[in-house]
Amino acid sequence: MLQIGIYGYGNLGRGVEDALRRAADMELAAVFTRRDPAALTLATAGVPVVPADQVLEWKGKLDALIICGGSATDLPQMTPALAADFNVIDSYDNHSQIPQHFAAVDAAARKGRTTALISCGWDPGMFSLNRMYGNAVLPAGRDYTFWGRGVSQGHSDAIRRIPGVLDARQYTVPVPEAVELVRSGANPTLTTRQKHTRECYVVAAPDADREAIRQQIVTMPAYFADYDTTVTFISQAEMDRDHSGLPHGGSVIRTGVTGKDDGHKEVIEYKLTLDSNPEFTGSVLAAFTRAVVRMAARQQWGCQTVFDVAPVDLMDREREDVIAHLL
Amino acid sequence: MLQIGIYGYGNLGRGVEDALRRAADMELAAVFTRRDPAALTLATAGVPVVPADQVLEWKGKLDALIICGGSATDLPQMTPALAADFNVIDSYDNHSQIPQHFAAVDAAARKGRTTALISCGWDPGMFSLNRMYGNAVLPAGRDYTFWGRGVSQGHSDAIRRIPGVLDARQYTVPVPEAVELVRSGANPTLTTRQKHTRECYVVAAPDADREAIRQQIVTMPAYFADYDTTVTFISQAEMDRDHSGLPHGGSVIRTGVTGKDDGHKEVIEYKLTLDSNPEFTGSVLAAFTRAVVRMAARQQWGCQTVFDVAPVDLMDREREDVIAHLL
Repeated sequence: MLQIGIYGYGNLGRGVEDALRRAADMELAAVFTRRDPAALTLATAGVPVVPADQVLEWKGKLDALIICGGSATDLPQMTPALAADFNVIDSYDNHSQIPQHFAAVDAAARKGRTTALISCGWDPGMFSLNRMYGNAVLPAGRDYTFWGRGVSQGHSDAIRRIPGVLDARQYTVPVPEAVELVRSGANPTLTTRQKHTRECYVVAAPDADREAIRQQIVTMPAYFADYDTTVTFISQAEMDRDHSGLPHGGSVIRTGVTGKDDGHKEVIEYKLTLDSNPEFTGSVLAAFTRAVVRMAARQQWGCQTVFDVAPVDLMDREREDVIAHLL
Repeated sequence: MLQIGIYGYGNLGRGVEDALRRAADMELAAVFTRRDPAALTLATAGVPVVPADQVLEWKGKLDALIICGGSATDLPQMTPALAADFNVIDSYDNHSQIPQHFAAVDAAARKGRTTALISCGWDPGMFSLNRMYGNAVLPAGRDYTFWGRGVSQGHSDAIRRIPGVLDARQYTVPVPEAVELVRSGANPTLTTRQKHTRECYVVAAPDADREAIRQQIVTMPAYFADYDTTVTFISQAEMDRDHSGLPHGGSVIRTGVTGKDDGHKEVIEYKLTLDSNPEFTGSVLAAFTRAVVRMAARQQWGCQTVFDVAPVDLMDREREDVIAHLL
């Protein structure tokens, strides 16, 4: 059994724990936390909860460490630091900063002779893989990515920071007509506003000016101003009852042409419909952790991505068995 | 420019030729045929058409050979024979015989110190990859594959062999209610009849007994007896006007559960909608041919499958560029 550590125990850490429980060849060896270990109750019995600053005592005892921190401030520090001593994997999702993160992690992993895999999950992750396969197979084509219907934590947090807002949940919703137009192979050029709408559910303080809150939301630059945004005020009881989940999903669509005079349309769509964003992300991380351990065994040191993993390395089955049954 | 040969010039060979024309890093060096070379008119100007029995004269001059023969009798002979002297790729699609084909090709390629990749296209091929990714990510789950709406050449040929039939085209059609039930995450158990229907368009001889032909079709074992099959008689003019294309496609769906008490459903769907089955298959073959050449350069001799290819090897772009723009 591969010995796997989880570094950080929020929604994503719990999602990874659930995925490890379902893997026949991996077991959770320890959870590392910056919080008071006594305050954590794991779903897995008998697994030690270790203060994060004692992680080096586990060097040599873990096959890999799954880092479940946030992309904004945690992972740019954590992943290079931990890659010096452990095989690691993270879900770094700040697309524009990936080359910098890659460089920092690569330097640390090469020096430490470890294998690190960054930006794993569904976007970046499975969506990235499908963008790549689509581009490789249909070079004369175009990419579209739609997200949702699903909860965006970043947008929900942005609403919560508005004075008078007690709680908020924001759903990103693809515009059905836009998705259908893309699926038809029409290759449309779509603006931000034409691709997605944003639905906000807000619990306001009793004395708050709801119209002022609504105005602040719909005009917020980068987050909402470029979208058709609806704001619905609800009670905390309604929030807890109807909006406690973290569903998400979306589609990566590649439309291309083949044949004489580009006369044939070919459409590839990869679609996710997820009840739980963090549990699915944790499931992807667990599968790629298996590949990280195998790449480390082959001394493939340095930073890797989902693009570098031969799919067979994701499976807890022999290559012959996989060829016979899944090909 | 990589020098690529096409061995066999039917629908698939022409699809590969179209895909090579769109690749910036590969060029068609020669087409090999068992027919009279003078009878072939290529879409690409200035490319030699060579009798198949002279292929060995091209040893050392081709980076890879794309074998476009039929799976029933051609490929089991051709691919091992050619793998002795060339890096090769084929689209062998007889799922139950893949382990035997793999073994024969592997032995030839190891002995010849070549790289061979078998069973590449969309099923087997892209559908296989999506079955594998789905199984790896959602181990507690279930696979579904739907084919169509699309033309099945094998079923069309079976109808054409019935006395009194002049021409025929068979469409495999997924049952919409079954697809929707699977997409809902309901994990249904579906019979063959519940998953697909078969639509047959038939041109009968003027004096033929149409009801007898219809009976022979709908009761044909393996091909039609287990399906709800409709037979529509049309004129040759209607056949030529409405059924000259080779559209196909389908969906691979993985439904799984995550979380406490398996309480969350996660659905992954990979869907193809293809105007041209052979041109899309040719596009997949061309992309994986690039990977075959790279694996050969790394001396990864022997038989490979789509599962063994790191996705980055499919791209005609630098790894850094791909990480920056597609991850």
